[in-house]
Amino acid sequence: MFVKNWMSENVVTVFPDTLLSTAADIISTKNIKHLPVINSGNILKGIVTSSDIRKAFGKNTSTENIRVDEIMSYTPITISEYDTLDDALLLIYQNMIGALPVIDSNFSLMGIIARYDILRAMVKIMSLEEVGSRIDVVLEDKPGMLEELAIQFKQMDINIISIMTVHAENNSRIVSVRIDSIFKKKVENHLISEGFKIYEPWKEGC
Amino acid sequence: MFVKNWMSENVVTVFPDTLLSTAADIISTKNIKHLPVINSGNILKGIVTSSDIRKAFGKNTSTENIRVDEIMSYTPITISEYDTLDDALLLIYQNMIGALPVIDSNFSLMGIIARYDILRAMVKIMSLEEVGSRIDVVLEDKPGMLEELAIQFKQMDINIISIMTVHAENNSRIVSVRIDSIFKKKVENHLISEGFKIYEPWKEGC
Repeated sequence: MFVKNWMSENVVTVFPDTLLSTAADIISTKNIKHLPVINSGNILKGIVTSSDIRKAFGKNTSTENIRVDEIMSYTPITISEYDTLDDALLLIYQNMIGALPVIDSNFSLMGIIARYDILRAMVKIMSLEEVGSRIDVVLEDKPGMLEELAIQFKQMDINIISIMTVHAENNSRIVSVRIDSIFKKKVENHLISEGFKIYEPWKEGC
Repeated sequence: MFVKNWMSENVVTVFPDTLLSTAADIISTKNIKHLPVINSGNILKGIVTSSDIRKAFGKNTSTENIRVDEIMSYTPITISEYDTLDDALLLIYQNMIGALPVIDSNFSLMGIIARYDILRAMVKIMSLEEVGSRIDVVLEDKPGMLEELAIQFKQMDINIISIMTVHAENNSRIVSVRIDSIFKKKVENHLISEGFKIYEPWKEGC
């Protein structure tokens, strides 16, 4: 669950002296939104986005001889291959950006990781494309509760694909369990019989 | 973890007879990418995106009198408020789209959920902005292993914020545990002493 496992390694790049019109052609032809700018030694010098280019063309000055390094961001937010996917997600979310160039300790460009890569990672990590079902349980928010829930699945001989928990109100949290069984109702009934509460917001009107 | 909890309810919309130039102004002024198209009864009729509009303006025909319903998608992929966030994620990922209009059973527009909303949900659900640390453990892929791991955290009196598991190779899987403790190394050492394996891809060169 590291950036290395989810980034694109084949990055389309431009040089600082590439003309803006060329960069615009590349973005349009390749249908991409982010162009890392590197020097001839593959060192990251900046980034230019489709939005930067649209804004530059939107101004009524002549754009004919504008170079990429006249409009690029010189200090893009970057990430390392061995940072986690969480780190990438948080950087993209907090800075409201679309993608992060991935660099090594020498600022060499190693790849790029974009919003779509994060979504893809989530789909694969949570096995959302695999057959199974999902059960949402309300648990008291204290150590050991997750263990007690896990015991139930072990007793039913059901394999847990993924678990995600979210803090909710009133000292409780909701735990979403994806299981490799399609017998959702049966599992829910077992959990209810063992004293667990199933999260059903449509019944509570919240 | 339902669409209802994460969608935007204040949706900027247009009507089928709205002029394309007006829609373009709205998209530019509000800095949005997706405009659901509704009738006067709030029933969803289609969607138009910034990309659709750019393409229409890119063609060299006169765009002056083009209406939104001449270029909109008439059958956008939609979702319900009570579908899960997983469903939204999977639809957005598999169809490579940016956002999903949220409708009720009468096709009334209730909201919109976009890629950024999914990322925001992930950040909040996994409490990525809260103090804590993350530990990646390699587990044998069979029922009960997650329970055995959970017992360890209970013994250390450490509260688990979230757990995510991913299937890996060789009949094992990697489990990422976020905990409300910053003593990552201490916890890792305890787990190692109990026979657990910490996932450290940079050491394995994978």
